[in-house]
Amino acid sequence: MNALKIKKIIQECLTDGQSVDQAVDEILGILQTKEAQIDLDREDRCGLQEVIYGKGKSTDQVMDIINAMTQKGLDNILVTKAPQDMGQSLVENFQGTYDPSSGIYHYGSYPPAKGEVTLICAGTSDLPIARECLLTLKSLGHSCHFIQDVGVAGIHRLLAHEEALQQSQVIIVIAGMEGALLSVVGGLCKCPLIGVPTSVGYGASFNGLAALLAMLNSCAAGSAVVNIDNGFGAAVLASRILNLK
Amino acid sequence: MNALKIKKIIQECLTDGQSVDQAVDEILGILQTKEAQIDLDREDRCGLQEVIYGKGKSTDQVMDIINAMTQKGLDNILVTKAPQDMGQSLVENFQGTYDPSSGIYHYGSYPPAKGEVTLICAGTSDLPIARECLLTLKSLGHSCHFIQDVGVAGIHRLLAHEEALQQSQVIIVIAGMEGALLSVVGGLCKCPLIGVPTSVGYGASFNGLAALLAMLNSCAAGSAVVNIDNGFGAAVLASRILNLK
Amino acid sequence: MNALKIKKIIQECLTDGQSVDQAVDEILGILQTKEAQIDLDREDRCGLQEVIYGKGKSTDQVMDIINAMTQKGLDNILVTKAPQDMGQSLVENFQGTYDPSSGIYHYGSYPPAKGEVTLICAGTSDLPIARECLLTLKSLGHSCHFIQDVGVAGIHRLLAHEEALQQSQVIIVIAGMEGALLSVVGGLCKCPLIGVPTSVGYGASFNGLAALLAMLNSCAAGSAVVNIDNGFGAAVLASRILNLK
Amino acid sequence: MNALKIKKIIQECLTDGQSVDQAVDEILGILQTKEAQIDLDREDRCGLQEVIYGKGKSTDQVMDIINAMTQKGLDNILVTKAPQDMGQSLVENFQGTYDPSSGIYHYGSYPPAKGEVTLICAGTSDLPIARECLLTLKSLGHSCHFIQDVGVAGIHRLLAHEEALQQSQVIIVIAGMEGALLSVVGGLCKCPLIGVPTSVGYGASFNGLAALLAMLNSCAAGSAVVNIDNGFGAAVLASRILNLK
Amino acid sequence: MNALKIKKIIQECLTDGQSVDQAVDEILGILQTKEAQIDLDREDRCGLQEVIYGKGKSTDQVMDIINAMTQKGLDNILVTKAPQDMGQSLVENFQGTYDPSSGIYHYGSYPPAKGEVTLICAGTSDLPIARECLLTLKSLGHSCHFIQDVGVAGIHRLLAHEEALQQSQVIIVIAGMEGALLSVVGGLCKCPLIGVPTSVGYGASFNGLAALLAMLNSCAAGSAVVNIDNGFGAAVLASRILNLK
Amino acid sequence: MNALKIKKIIQECLTDGQSVDQAVDEILGILQTKEAQIDLDREDRCGLQEVIYGKGKSTDQVMDIINAMTQKGLDNILVTKAPQDMGQSLVENFQGTYDPSSGIYHYGSYPPAKGEVTLICAGTSDLPIARECLLTLKSLGHSCHFIQDVGVAGIHRLLAHEEALQQSQVIIVIAGMEGALLSVVGGLCKCPLIGVPTSVGYGASFNGLAALLAMLNSCAAGSAVVNIDNGFGAAVLASRILNLK
Amino acid sequence: MNALKIKKIIQECLTDGQSVDQAVDEILGILQTKEAQIDLDREDRCGLQEVIYGKGKSTDQVMDIINAMTQKGLDNILVTKAPQDMGQSLVENFQGTYDPSSGIYHYGSYPPAKGEVTLICAGTSDLPIARECLLTLKSLGHSCHFIQDVGVAGIHRLLAHEEALQQSQVIIVIAGMEGALLSVVGGLCKCPLIGVPTSVGYGASFNGLAALLAMLNSCAAGSAVVNIDNGFGAAVLASRILNLK
Amino acid sequence: MNALKIKKIIQECLTDGQSVDQAVDEILGILQTKEAQIDLDREDRCGLQEVIYGKGKSTDQVMDIINAMTQKGLDNILVTKAPQDMGQSLVENFQGTYDPSSGIYHYGSYPPAKGEVTLICAGTSDLPIARECLLTLKSLGHSCHFIQDVGVAGIHRLLAHEEALQQSQVIIVIAGMEGALLSVVGGLCKCPLIGVPTSVGYGASFNGLAALLAMLNSCAAGSAVVNIDNGFGAAVLASRILNLK
Repeated sequence: MNALKIKKIIQECLTDGQSVDQAVDEILGILQTKEAQIDLDREDRCGLQEVIYGKGKSTDQVMDIINAMTQKGLDNILVTKAPQDMGQSLVENFQGTYDPSSGIYHYGSYPPAKGEVTLICAGTSDLPIARECLLTLKSLGHSCHFIQDVGVAGIHRLLAHEEALQQSQVIIVIAGMEGALLSVVGGLCKCPLIGVPTSVGYGASFNGLAALLAMLNSCAAGSAVVNIDNGFGAAVLASRILNLK
Repeated sequence: MNALKIKKIIQECLTDGQSVDQAVDEILGILQTKEAQIDLDREDRCGLQEVIYGKGKSTDQVMDIINAMTQKGLDNILVTKAPQDMGQSLVENFQGTYDPSSGIYHYGSYPPAKGEVTLICAGTSDLPIARECLLTLKSLGHSCHFIQDVGVAGIHRLLAHEEALQQSQVIIVIAGMEGALLSVVGGLCKCPLIGVPTSVGYGASFNGLAALLAMLNSCAAGSAVVNIDNGFGAAVLASRILNLK
Repeated sequence: MNALKIKKIIQECLTDGQSVDQAVDEILGILQTKEAQIDLDREDRCGLQEVIYGKGKSTDQVMDIINAMTQKGLDNILVTKAPQDMGQSLVENFQGTYDPSSGIYHYGSYPPAKGEVTLICAGTSDLPIARECLLTLKSLGHSCHFIQDVGVAGIHRLLAHEEALQQSQVIIVIAGMEGALLSVVGGLCKCPLIGVPTSVGYGASFNGLAALLAMLNSCAAGSAVVNIDNGFGAAVLASRILNLK
Repeated sequence: MNALKIKKIIQECLTDGQSVDQAVDEILGILQTKEAQIDLDREDRCGLQEVIYGKGKSTDQVMDIINAMTQKGLDNILVTKAPQDMGQSLVENFQGTYDPSSGIYHYGSYPPAKGEVTLICAGTSDLPIARECLLTLKSLGHSCHFIQDVGVAGIHRLLAHEEALQQSQVIIVIAGMEGALLSVVGGLCKCPLIGVPTSVGYGASFNGLAALLAMLNSCAAGSAVVNIDNGFGAAVLASRILNLK
Repeated sequence: MNALKIKKIIQECLTDGQSVDQAVDEILGILQTKEAQIDLDREDRCGLQEVIYGKGKSTDQVMDIINAMTQKGLDNILVTKAPQDMGQSLVENFQGTYDPSSGIYHYGSYPPAKGEVTLICAGTSDLPIARECLLTLKSLGHSCHFIQDVGVAGIHRLLAHEEALQQSQVIIVIAGMEGALLSVVGGLCKCPLIGVPTSVGYGASFNGLAALLAMLNSCAAGSAVVNIDNGFGAAVLASRILNLK
Repeated sequence: MNALKIKKIIQECLTDGQSVDQAVDEILGILQTKEAQIDLDREDRCGLQEVIYGKGKSTDQVMDIINAMTQKGLDNILVTKAPQDMGQSLVENFQGTYDPSSGIYHYGSYPPAKGEVTLICAGTSDLPIARECLLTLKSLGHSCHFIQDVGVAGIHRLLAHEEALQQSQVIIVIAGMEGALLSVVGGLCKCPLIGVPTSVGYGASFNGLAALLAMLNSCAAGSAVVNIDNGFGAAVLASRILNLK
Repeated sequence: MNALKIKKIIQECLTDGQSVDQAVDEILGILQTKEAQIDLDREDRCGLQEVIYGKGKSTDQVMDIINAMTQKGLDNILVTKAPQDMGQSLVENFQGTYDPSSGIYHYGSYPPAKGEVTLICAGTSDLPIARECLLTLKSLGHSCHFIQDVGVAGIHRLLAHEEALQQSQVIIVIAGMEGALLSVVGGLCKCPLIGVPTSVGYGASFNGLAALLAMLNSCAAGSAVVNIDNGFGAAVLASRILNLK
Repeated sequence: MNALKIKKIIQECLTDGQSVDQAVDEILGILQTKEAQIDLDREDRCGLQEVIYGKGKSTDQVMDIINAMTQKGLDNILVTKAPQDMGQSLVENFQGTYDPSSGIYHYGSYPPAKGEVTLICAGTSDLPIARECLLTLKSLGHSCHFIQDVGVAGIHRLLAHEEALQQSQVIIVIAGMEGALLSVVGGLCKCPLIGVPTSVGYGASFNGLAALLAMLNSCAAGSAVVNIDNGFGAAVLASRILNLK
């Protein structure tokens, strides 16, 4: 935080009736709402402004946070894992777009696409998580080369994309059930590889545990794994990798 | 049990000093040793005579059982999961052969090979379980087409065998870590497929749990799974399948 | 894929207004729908055309896939684990039959029955999974000898079928709770044996984990196990075994 | 504790140089050793004097406890789960008998046998736990009808004992692996049934978890389960049941 | 099955138009309904006629079974774990009584009470399982001495019943959360003790796992444990124990 | 219980028509309701009168208990984990206040605040548990210094409170997901520290297991952990600590 | 860090040949050894200087750390979970005392005892963890009122100490197996209560998981739990509580 | 594989007495040893030649593989998780270097360092895994900025490196116990972040499960996780990320 910014904050305090407490918070990089403290420095520190995790919050809490962020001029706001009724309320109140299959709500404008991620989705039932990933990438300024429905039971569907895999800069693999796709892709590419186990399956999939353990034990080195159904996290990591270039 | 056999048992009772209790047991198909009851009818009922599970038994107990079986004229005796000191004692006492990597001890003669199983082993560390499987198959009268070290991280090593897979009559897949090989093979063959997860791996493999769950959740239909490290069980099932023809 | 088929595909491309991309896909054995890639070669490779896993898909996605398959002349289409509302929509749109207890939807004609599977169901609460198995077998061209409600607490109900067990060519055992039925049947038959643990039970059944672990540890060799509640998978494996003859 | 006993304790305090603290403890029913407090009233309250759990104690600690008990005139002392070196030291110091397979050490005389328990052991590898059970029963004044090696894979070996099962007053079933024996026995008897899952097995037996869960989910009512490898606990419960008569 | 019963069955076959298959089943002790096989010999073999497990069955299936049982003159019919809508339908169709808190439906007359079980319930939230236990005992001809709401956090509430515990013939302890009540009771009584862990609790109770493990590891010998929430099973075991006398 | 109180109880028995049984209970410190036994001595023994756990109880059962408590003159009554319909009924019947986010119902007057707890809440989704904690503290006579939304991903938000942490007398940390906040706070304070893992998260959080295990393994000594989502328990412990002074 | 301390550090840098890097570290409160960074400010920040966790470190690494600490004048150094060979080497090299049962090594002088903790140990097998706790308390300047071998199976042994429990200022309960002792003590005291589950037990104790879950679900409020076998952590928390006064 | 290479292979076949089978294998990119098939194309395909996983292999098997690789001119050979006796034999037979703490054996020359990874290690007990990571990076041509012993209990030790974190290109965090370090670092950097949970800890760390779950649930986006103790895998992923530039 440089002198200019601090000066501006103090001036707002003097002229706009903002309280001294709020000014202190802002100098510390904190934006207080009724029940949250938004981390305003996060973009400086981590290259990504705060994203709102919708699950377990009330719609009112999320709306307070969005209001506070937009009043500070923040644009390109993302809410993840938003339940259907929250998503609809947000669209009614702020406009923006809500994707019910993935629970992603987005407000504001997207940055121009800087790089491309290869996103591979094992089956049609994994699409909601793939969409969470894709929409997060979009808000981070990255486009997708999307390869879908290429489960290992028909390995030729994947091998048809071998050249694309060889030329990718970062690959995200989304798979439930036995999660074997990560290992097979790992043997066909040179670039960093991120596995997203999904909770797709039943019985001994134990809500994604089977896919998670399989991906963690992948014999194909060069990959790492995020939480079950965490398409958002995979997108952020892929974005950080692309931003290195 | 037909009249002839029962007559022979009673005659032995009269002439050989065998006790009446033993005769009753034999008519019931039971062979008593000091601490075990051998199921003599199992071959008639299940197509496979009793196999001795070595783990948790003392060497003396196993020797008693073998002695009793050989006295009844049984040949082709198999001990599984036999620790190294037990294996050595058995060879010293009865001859026969002991394979220390798999813990298989065999006594007697092998039947001629009636059919062939395709046995696919993911990595060199899985070989002990593959040998347990192979030696059990040998004692059951089946030969092996053995494809080894074809883990999914180098899928071309497996694809080089695609024709063999298409022509197999039954396939056993042995793999630890993420156990993904079963799913890939499942998409390349028409025949019955048996998965053997192994305890090869570390950390989140949890002694084979990862491979077990992955194989149970395989998206390639037509397969089933046996216990972790159970090369013996896979061999028996494969044998039953081949015996159908 | 032989020359004739490729020629036919290219001709369709020229005459029916089909795009070049679609032709490439078909030569590769892939049928693109809006959100899925159907594996057209699977029947050639695996002896079984693609089956649609209904859980986690939207009804629209499933209808797109069925439309694409029927347009390619595929008949005998199976959807598994279809929720009740999906099943009803499919019947309304395509006719066919939907079984709500098992979630099996079937469209088209059944092949004539080539062989017979012995299907043993432990209790009345396991019937939905037994029906999934039975209807899958029907679509694969196999009939069932169905033995129901023979839990081990009344072992004489099972022993009354001992002769049938001895003459079976492949047996599927469906049981929840403690899953003990597999071991008992395993000691009474010579043929390959497939265990289907079900999620029937409560408390320490942990949604089928108890039955799964019990079946994996069965002391009766010659059996293998599929996923919890996976009547479909057991049917496919049984079918592959019967097809060997 | 009646007046007579208290009087005797106070007299010992006066005449034998016993400290007042010790007298208080004894009136409370507590016998202090260097690192333990023996519960002297337990036989009155629970019908069974204190038994020493050997695992995790040092040999010195166990010897102190035995010394204190014998000085109070206690006879028929039992140590369970005693490691081999502890067992040998105890025999050297106090005589008595030590069974290395089960880890049971016993000192003193056995009471005459008041009743009989039917003890069924699935396989030879389960014998150590069966011996723990049998030796505990002996020290509690009960004999055993011992049926061994009757695993469910050869159900006729068990059915040969059907009459004995029908006439039993209490049955203990000891089984590892899939633990199915409890359910089968449960369908063949009228009396109370106690299951002891053992850690016999490997892989997905998870050190007895498979047998434990199976026994807890038994569809044959009338049974309950003790801890994995807890032959001692089953014996105590069986003894309490027989003592009711 | 004696000659008289068989004669009666064959006469019914001749006179009542009953099929030969049905007669064979009855001689074997099996009563066929549309989707179940009722084990008619169970009372002879196990001292308890078949009880209907309601969970996972349709109301139609349960009504078929009850109809078949009542036609054979069976009275005192019990359905356990019956969902609310099933319970209401049963009362509407057959009369009888349904207890919604425990899911127990009973039809017919109760036998006179032969003995008394001491039933101890830790907290008010455990009452549904206690009622399952109590109603099962009633149908088995046993009354209850019911001690309720005596959790270990106020141990004096339990100690006030110490004399009753000392005089009990069999005690059932029902407790969720940490399940500690079993151990405390175990140190205050001489009689057989049965623990019923319940799923009462939240968080790390993991639906009753905490109570189950605690009860299995109880340091108070003389107890055994049934499945989580299995008040029915505890009642049957208690009944078998009382019947010994 | 002193002579005066006992005298008063007996007089009530004589004059108010109270039964002798009730008088005995009261002397023993027990208050009987229809289905519960309230532990009246608990405040004397434990410094905290009985709190009603609402989950798993019916609204009628809870109302009976409250009625009995208020008739005995108890004030400051707390119900935890009360479902929404129960909470509304209680407010309608007794007045008092119900907080739907935490499920806390309170009746009566609050004691004056004696001390202050520092309550740190990781994220907005953890607020319901924080409120359970805060409202319990209020009923125990303690105020809160409440620091909210200071997850470790923006550590400066926490460090801004370093001085407050150094001056706290007892700190409660409430966090879900990876539960890392406890360790970081543990390195910044001298006072006792209580961790409350919450079930906030998804996938491999396994309903709070991840946060629970993390907190139990905290490398920052001086902390201990309560059950997942147990804001109530943390408040009681914090209160006991403050009461020491 | 005040000016005086910084001045002293810089002077040492000038006069003692200490490098500038080291001086920077010390001003930051860090003491570099070959493979560790000792946190010198921890006592200021947390009231407790760094304690060395011995497990997984080599003896050389631990000796380097101790050397560095003693050179800085630190006294009263504690090593926890030190294996036997490490403990012996430390005594040979530095003197100090090593307790092999608990793995605690201590070097230097103990502070005078400021307060007293009540330490309750369930059984003799739990003593090693009790000693870890006791020796840590001693090095933190607290004495112990030690109540040992008072498992819940003989509840009168505990009740004999009821007055002591009522007068305690903080209580630590150490128990393995079912861990029930925490709940019972919780109902008998007013002070803060810390549970230490131990790995004592076998079978379904799962190395302390049973005791851990039981203690976390304790129905007696006012307690919290540390890691399995973490006597050290309980001692530090107890010390922080006593230091409040 | 280009024409030149194939020509060379065939010429070797003609002149060097190499078998035709071997030539076929090489054209397919496979190098057969007695019990392994080395994937020669892996470097082309994946940017990394085959690495030998030592655990579960015999020393003879590893030596065969190394011999075959060196005969093909491969240099820079890595063996991971090699037990101590294997490591010593390899050094005796081939020279090279073996690090006993990490189990890494390396043969041949290292490539020049192309980029730098920031490697952060939580505690001294985690060093073996950090060394596995560091030595793998060295063989992949990357150097390390190594920050050690900066556990979260002394957060200032980490904050002292904040600038280095901000300037890193890729960060690997190695931590056992509660694994909280990953989340804290995640909030202080912009670059890709890889977490390595270790099995350091005891009790409820469950051999690294606690750290694994914590890292998977990290609230700091931008990170992913590899298997427990998998320093090798993290190094390969970091290398792939750096190679992008």
